[in-house]
Amino acid sequence: MKLIDLLFGRRLANREHEQRKIGWVAGVPAMGLDGLGSSSYGPEAALTILIPLGAASLAYIGWVIAPIIALLLILYLSYRQTLLAYPTNGGAYTVAKENLGEPGALLAASALMIDYILNVAVGISAGVGALTSSVPSLHPYALWLCLGILALVAIANLRGTREAGWLFALPTYLFLASFAGIIGYGLFQILATGGNPQPVVAPPELGRATEAASLWLLLRAFAAGCTAMTGVEAVANGVDAFKEPVVRQARATLTVICLSLGLLLIGIAVVAHGYRLGAMDQTAAGYQSVLSQLVGAIVGRGVLYYAAMISLLAVLCLSANTSFVAFPRVCRLVALDGYLPRSFAVSDRRLVFSVGVLFLTATGAGLLILFDGITDRLIPLFAIGAFLTFTLSQAGMVVHWLREGGQRGRMLINALGTVTTAVALVIILLAKFADGAWIVALAVPLTIAALVGVHRYYQHADRQLEAAGPFSVDEIDAPTVLVAYEDRNRMTDRALRFAMTLSPDVVAVHLLRLKGPEQEEDLRGIRERYEAEVAAPLTAAGMTPPRLMLVPAPYREIDGPLLDLVAKIDEATPGRSVAILIPERVHRRWWAHILHSRRADRLRAALMEHAGPRLMIVTAPWRG
Amino acid sequence: MKLIDLLFGRRLANREHEQRKIGWVAGVPAMGLDGLGSSSYGPEAALTILIPLGAASLAYIGWVIAPIIALLLILYLSYRQTLLAYPTNGGAYTVAKENLGEPGALLAASALMIDYILNVAVGISAGVGALTSSVPSLHPYALWLCLGILALVAIANLRGTREAGWLFALPTYLFLASFAGIIGYGLFQILATGGNPQPVVAPPELGRATEAASLWLLLRAFAAGCTAMTGVEAVANGVDAFKEPVVRQARATLTVICLSLGLLLIGIAVVAHGYRLGAMDQTAAGYQSVLSQLVGAIVGRGVLYYAAMISLLAVLCLSANTSFVAFPRVCRLVALDGYLPRSFAVSDRRLVFSVGVLFLTATGAGLLILFDGITDRLIPLFAIGAFLTFTLSQAGMVVHWLREGGQRGRMLINALGTVTTAVALVIILLAKFADGAWIVALAVPLTIAALVGVHRYYQHADRQLEAAGPFSVDEIDAPTVLVAYEDRNRMTDRALRFAMTLSPDVVAVHLLRLKGPEQEEDLRGIRERYEAEVAAPLTAAGMTPPRLMLVPAPYREIDGPLLDLVAKIDEATPGRSVAILIPERVHRRWWAHILHSRRADRLRAALMEHAGPRLMIVTAPWRG
Repeated sequence: MKLIDLLFGRRLANREHEQRKIGWVAGVPAMGLDGLGSSSYGPEAALTILIPLGAASLAYIGWVIAPIIALLLILYLSYRQTLLAYPTNGGAYTVAKENLGEPGALLAASALMIDYILNVAVGISAGVGALTSSVPSLHPYALWLCLGILALVAIANLRGTREAGWLFALPTYLFLASFAGIIGYGLFQILATGGNPQPVVAPPELGRATEAASLWLLLRAFAAGCTAMTGVEAVANGVDAFKEPVVRQARATLTVICLSLGLLLIGIAVVAHGYRLGAMDQTAAGYQSVLSQLVGAIVGRGVLYYAAMISLLAVLCLSANTSFVAFPRVCRLVALDGYLPRSFAVSDRRLVFSVGVLFLTATGAGLLILFDGITDRLIPLFAIGAFLTFTLSQAGMVVHWLREGGQRGRMLINALGTVTTAVALVIILLAKFADGAWIVALAVPLTIAALVGVHRYYQHADRQLEAAGPFSVDEIDAPTVLVAYEDRNRMTDRALRFAMTLSPDVVAVHLLRLKGPEQEEDLRGIRERYEAEVAAPLTAAGMTPPRLMLVPAPYREIDGPLLDLVAKIDEATPGRSVAILIPERVHRRWWAHILHSRRADRLRAALMEHAGPRLMIVTAPWRG
Repeated sequence: MKLIDLLFGRRLANREHEQRKIGWVAGVPAMGLDGLGSSSYGPEAALTILIPLGAASLAYIGWVIAPIIALLLILYLSYRQTLLAYPTNGGAYTVAKENLGEPGALLAASALMIDYILNVAVGISAGVGALTSSVPSLHPYALWLCLGILALVAIANLRGTREAGWLFALPTYLFLASFAGIIGYGLFQILATGGNPQPVVAPPELGRATEAASLWLLLRAFAAGCTAMTGVEAVANGVDAFKEPVVRQARATLTVICLSLGLLLIGIAVVAHGYRLGAMDQTAAGYQSVLSQLVGAIVGRGVLYYAAMISLLAVLCLSANTSFVAFPRVCRLVALDGYLPRSFAVSDRRLVFSVGVLFLTATGAGLLILFDGITDRLIPLFAIGAFLTFTLSQAGMVVHWLREGGQRGRMLINALGTVTTAVALVIILLAKFADGAWIVALAVPLTIAALVGVHRYYQHADRQLEAAGPFSVDEIDAPTVLVAYEDRNRMTDRALRFAMTLSPDVVAVHLLRLKGPEQEEDLRGIRERYEAEVAAPLTAAGMTPPRLMLVPAPYREIDGPLLDLVAKIDEATPGRSVAILIPERVHRRWWAHILHSRRADRLRAALMEHAGPRLMIVTAPWRG
């Protein structure tokens, strides 16, 4: 018990629930790591698509980043509205359920679940990939590093969202501060030099153009850059983690995340243009990421460079945390509606929905192990899930405003959001279908089918449980109590006494093994001891002693004969229930289990499996 | 259930026990494979020690084999006597227990157990080693072949000794017939040619002498050759497998095994001498075993050669079967005396002591995996176990005859046996101590310590169970029955009805989660439904309705508050017992477990662990 407290913290009472909630300062690291981390791979991905343009790519950076910023702004404004409209939970699942009905809700649920699971594997392996490419000696341990970070994030979240927020605050704010400083200084240099800054470490020359710019190329670059926006919806899904005033705390968190992300993207675009930076071929030797070139160009390879790159690495590695905050909360809502096992809605000793956390850990670990810690190919996939949820959430909000009426301005913002995210979704799907988008197109319907299956099962089970009419007042006769009896000892003494407290009709059942003359003599001993030591004193005290019944067990197992006996009693006394009392040893030491038969356990399991509707199983724990 | 019947056969009733017994024809393959198989490696091992003598070794074969034959004769005669004196079980454990007391019995038990476990690993890997050396393409699969054969032997023995006997009869008798024929023909050739037979395939020339014969060399060759005698004690340990007349069947089996083994050894020695055969260096290229040379020399490399060698391989591979017949029976006796877990003494659905079989399979597989299927180095070890049991058994018989009195002749045979096997044991120990005999010297005391530990535990547990005085007639008041109650449904209806059959004092316990205003309203609903639908009809029918009790569960777990409640009731009504009734769903499909909480299970486990002495746990299985 002490180890568990050390790892996960002491257990928390329900009344401590309010104190577990967070404000925006802890909210940004808790929910923003995915969004902020994507600033590193979004621009990189967009510029990689532009490589064939060579130096001409610089002219097109703005064309690609500007619509992304516009989309981010639309998303920000519309999520602000959603938070106000759905102050308890404004995630895509809730909004779709309220406004688009069951199909929309299930689509949103499966998209969110897949998105968050992918994000865990992709985020961690991307971070570890960046780490091992700068420290190649760590390369053989990539998978172990991935699993170690996953375990760290999982344990932090099993302690609670509050703890995870505080634990990851340092790298988050260090990342924001260092990049704000570096990009700001870069912008200043560009202004000061009239657009021709002198890089401290010169970035490699941009290559020659091998292709002319085309709309399709720019659309593909836009689609790739859209990965920068993943993680933005996490705040809406995690609303119930915030303390009062909830809407203000959530909006503040959303504002910090979106503003930081937007400024980072704009800053990166402008600085890349000014310093003439481009993406490099990742498979070529001497590869450097855009952000590494950028930091090097502005401040050189000093302490600041390493501080910035290390904080970036940390943010990437920990971006899985966003999933750990949002996924269990989404699953809880889905489970409360009966589409996921109910255990997803149960809060554990730390008030955490630990089944969701553990499920996410297991599937994330499974993906990491399956792909040996190299999940680059999954990156395109999770933008699809994110944009599907964006679109559903926006569309739901449009319906919401239409129903409310009179909120034309707000409705228009969400309508614009719906159209733009839907267009972006189509572009991403088209641009990346062959790269793996088809996997998501397959996984979504499968997940929906599973959710519907679970729902049907629960509906069926609940119907079976429904009580019809008032409580029946029949069948209140005392049951026949059978006691498994081998020979007289303190354990069976106690079991018989217990049985006699339950009913006047007690039968001590001794199972015969029938094995030859020696056995039968022993049997007489058992019967004589029973008569003299059990039955006689009871009769003397004026009580009816339990009957001793000898039942043959030709196949040595005990459940068969007992079930037969129960069936016979059921026939003889219809309407009365039967209780089987099994004395069971409680072992204080684990190895004691080896030295005793598991007979009580097995008998119980067999009775559970085969017993008729009027059977009770009574266990009398014996601690010796 | 059908798969289990197919693999292991239908279940057997106790009364079928007699029909499961075997006569000597099935007894020889069941118990003799180890003994007969050792004819291949005993002479080989002895001749290997003689290699340094070169051609001179031929002169000494007789000096080595003759004392082995003499020892075998003594063992045969004394085991015949033992079978008569102990017709139910004449193994070393029984004889030592009856005559040498606990220390002797434990020494015999541990020696036997170690011997049989080693025999499984060594027998199978020796057979597979011979197979892969003749079919080198099988070499990469050696371990899998070992484990496959182990599984085959284990399954045959889980069906029963009878099945194992019949299954392995063909290779056993084929082996005996082919070697009898070949060696007989070889002896005839030697006689016909006046001692100078012409080999069909000439064996390699014997090397030049590099060493002169010494007593120590001959003693070491004798010690090595003694491995030929292992497995002879199996008949005495397996007596209860024989049908009536037991002593005659067992003696016939022993006679066939010892006679065959003796004739084989003599034949091999004479033919090796006549055809000028010697052992070859196993590590050198072109290595051939003595028996392979022998068969080649007598009948050439035709069909007969392959039939003989294949039957030899089969006998070697299956020699593990002897362990599977004898080990579970030894363990059963040891378990009946309380030195091993009692489950070793329980016969399963096939009347087999399957715990022993499975234990042997697991430890055998463990050794094979640990040594990667190459256990040659363990061969010397198990002769030690065998000779230790021989010596103990003989010594016990000496004591037995001394007690009986008037059996001077029989006593002398056993005394001779004691001295000779003890001398052989000392020689083997000295000759092989560094080769691994020290492992046995270590394993035996450890095993004895484990046996004694188990015995002490059982003695302690039995003392705790002992009933003192007559059955107590107090504490027969009806218990307070608590029913875990969430809201009214068919399952809780049934649970309440059951509880009311057990006692007039029933409390429906609803655990409060305390979570805000919404929860409390729901609570009023629960209480109102209870009053209107449960309590009212019962009151109307003139019965006392169970009380509904609302218990706060601040930490969401249910066992803590329930245990507190039980403690309170215990205090308020001392002497009365408390029963907790838990409705528990029985799932028909395995996946249904995932969709329901394991709350009933966990509650039961927590109550078992922490409940006071007056608690009963009542399970009401609900099949929906």
